[in-house]
Amino acid sequence: MKAYKEMSREELLSLKDELEKQFADAKGKGLKLDMSRGKPGLEQLDMTMDIMDVLDSKADMRCEQGVDTRNYGLMDGISEAKHLMSDMMGGIPAENVIVYGNSSLSIMYDTISRCVTHGVLGSTPWCKLDKVKFLCPAPGYDRHFSITELFGIEMITIPMTSEGPDMDLVEKYVSEDPAVKGIWCVPKYSNPQGITYSDETVRRFAALKPAAEDFRIFWDNAYSIHDLYEEDRDDLLEILSECEKAGNPDIVYEFSSLSKVTFSGAGIAAFAASKKNVEETKKFMAVMTIGYDKINQLRHVRYFKNVEGLKAHMQKHAAILRPKFEAVLRVLDKELEGLGIGEWTRPCGGYFISFEAMEGCAKAIVEKCKEAGVVMTGAGATFPYGKDPKDSNIRIAPTFPNSEELAAAADLFVLCVKLVSVEKILAAF
Amino acid sequence: MKAYKEMSREELLSLKDELEKQFADAKGKGLKLDMSRGKPGLEQLDMTMDIMDVLDSKADMRCEQGVDTRNYGLMDGISEAKHLMSDMMGGIPAENVIVYGNSSLSIMYDTISRCVTHGVLGSTPWCKLDKVKFLCPAPGYDRHFSITELFGIEMITIPMTSEGPDMDLVEKYVSEDPAVKGIWCVPKYSNPQGITYSDETVRRFAALKPAAEDFRIFWDNAYSIHDLYEEDRDDLLEILSECEKAGNPDIVYEFSSLSKVTFSGAGIAAFAASKKNVEETKKFMAVMTIGYDKINQLRHVRYFKNVEGLKAHMQKHAAILRPKFEAVLRVLDKELEGLGIGEWTRPCGGYFISFEAMEGCAKAIVEKCKEAGVVMTGAGATFPYGKDPKDSNIRIAPTFPNSEELAAAADLFVLCVKLVSVEKILAAF
Repeated sequence: MKAYKEMSREELLSLKDELEKQFADAKGKGLKLDMSRGKPGLEQLDMTMDIMDVLDSKADMRCEQGVDTRNYGLMDGISEAKHLMSDMMGGIPAENVIVYGNSSLSIMYDTISRCVTHGVLGSTPWCKLDKVKFLCPAPGYDRHFSITELFGIEMITIPMTSEGPDMDLVEKYVSEDPAVKGIWCVPKYSNPQGITYSDETVRRFAALKPAAEDFRIFWDNAYSIHDLYEEDRDDLLEILSECEKAGNPDIVYEFSSLSKVTFSGAGIAAFAASKKNVEETKKFMAVMTIGYDKINQLRHVRYFKNVEGLKAHMQKHAAILRPKFEAVLRVLDKELEGLGIGEWTRPCGGYFISFEAMEGCAKAIVEKCKEAGVVMTGAGATFPYGKDPKDSNIRIAPTFPNSEELAAAADLFVLCVKLVSVEKILAAF
Repeated sequence: MKAYKEMSREELLSLKDELEKQFADAKGKGLKLDMSRGKPGLEQLDMTMDIMDVLDSKADMRCEQGVDTRNYGLMDGISEAKHLMSDMMGGIPAENVIVYGNSSLSIMYDTISRCVTHGVLGSTPWCKLDKVKFLCPAPGYDRHFSITELFGIEMITIPMTSEGPDMDLVEKYVSEDPAVKGIWCVPKYSNPQGITYSDETVRRFAALKPAAEDFRIFWDNAYSIHDLYEEDRDDLLEILSECEKAGNPDIVYEFSSLSKVTFSGAGIAAFAASKKNVEETKKFMAVMTIGYDKINQLRHVRYFKNVEGLKAHMQKHAAILRPKFEAVLRVLDKELEGLGIGEWTRPCGGYFISFEAMEGCAKAIVEKCKEAGVVMTGAGATFPYGKDPKDSNIRIAPTFPNSEELAAAADLFVLCVKLVSVEKILAAF
């Protein structure tokens, strides 16, 4: 195929005509599809329904510690749930883990909020400081950026490489600026690019020498077992032990959840950190709550039994998700390869494909898709303040639609990419 | 019986001898009992087990709105859960209600935390103010006081009357001091006294004219349907509509939960307020979480169906709890009546009996009980900063122990009350 930029004005004009006709046809179909959020699909949810039978009215509701999960107690989670989550996070000691309610995002919010009101291990509360900054590898997860924005924390964009965030830049900011208090990371199958941080990247994180004593890495290990391919799986170094080895045990807060393992919003979530950090967190938890839903913790552990059970379950997910990712990639390959109007990632796991359009085209593409009934994640959402400086990144979430819907949505997406790109190139003539 | 204060020194000394012997005997029994926390008893939990069968693997998991409760969405709760909770709170419109996760205490913590970091409806964040004060009717709920203490909020004790907090004092503080930003209330079957605020008290709350625009009443309606007697039930005026009528719609935040209806820590919790307050709360929620556990919301609604179902369930609770309260009251009446060394409440609902010892005796009584194996709520816990100025209030929580344990615990308690009181009177001779 001929790259668009090598086409003559006449070729482009005729192509534009053709694409506009196709777009008018597509609009006529009255599509109503959503590729905007990383939601599990119906098949995944249905496949998990037998978890609903695990605890019935005849069940023994006591956990391993002999505590009745129906009553108050065990604020930091039942022991077997700590073990399950710690194994899932790569074999962290269970005493470094706290099991919460249904949402790791809430734990992150609470953690930032606590830093703002009370500081970190006795440091000055961030609300008493003139300026607090966070490093934000981008493209990244929009909801991370929303939290830091809400608290008035200045966000500094860090470019992503194929090995993770640009560590030269991270090291520079962290070691030189005491106002830099944290960094958001999705270290495995990053949202949206599906990049897994290399061993070197993880080790450089663990070895950071922050100017701020209260600097923390916010390690959102959301996709630790969300591999699409058994044989072609990314492996992530376990960061807590790396930090320990580097003499930096307290530098990281890790977050994890089962929202995309069982049910979104009805899973269990966990926090992991050094002994000191965990103790501080528990001190605040004791004021914040009497405890989380231990019955749901018990339900999850009885269902999966152990991390092998979790992994076996995730292979079933992969069997459902693989064809969806591949269907989108097939359309992108077939329709856009060689045209020079976009690049895309081929993740081995996670929930997203990241598309890099020509500079200045992302907003217009998402707008065009919407016009014809396909909702994409808002362009810019993957950057701090919702502003993509190049206006080129688009997050594709292929997990929720069924394969028929997905084909229709992907077809429309590439059509919009083509159309907007042709217009862009023509405008520059 | 002769009041202790009318006894001669000799009589008291001989009584003391006798009581010490009894105490030595009691200690020898090696009791290990807990009357410290408002925990449901085993019978209550067992009685509720059929809720575990309501949603099984064959269940239709869609809520009334047609949304799949297993996936993301409906951040502020499923519609039928809003209705159930709004009916439970006395018939508030469902759109004024947000349904959360398992804990109303967490909602209160989050709400205070948000006021600290972001203010109220655009007011100055409390963390930017030199001084923030809260009114704390006492004796009250220790966990309320822990939250305000954690955020460095100055707590002002407000005495309780039989109709609720001393409203003359409340009105004075609220109208005169702009640093007074809130008040903690447990308006029905208050913790620990079991007092229900009178209609006049509720109306005076609704009609408050605060000096601070960001003053809020924190209305922890924890025991709205926790009546012990069907015929002898306290009724609480619904505050939201009273505030509306008084032209003060935004002045109150209400909290409620099913923790002491189904399972402690695995129920559902709700927040209710004016449209403006609810909208502000949702704005923050959207950053804080993707949503709460809608499956557990659905489970609760399918189980109870409606508020009548809830109330029928609570009558079964009452049948279990009534004898427990009465057993303790019987021992108090029989052993302490007329001795002039203590007073106690006779609540028609809730989870506690409040005991007022002679001034300066509460700590010593609780200590003595502990020495012989009965754990009571720490003396002072019912006051701000854990300091009861008279050292006289003791919270009795009779719900968790079984009747045999309860009899033993109550016997020991009255023995300790007598012994400490005798020592106190003797010391003053």
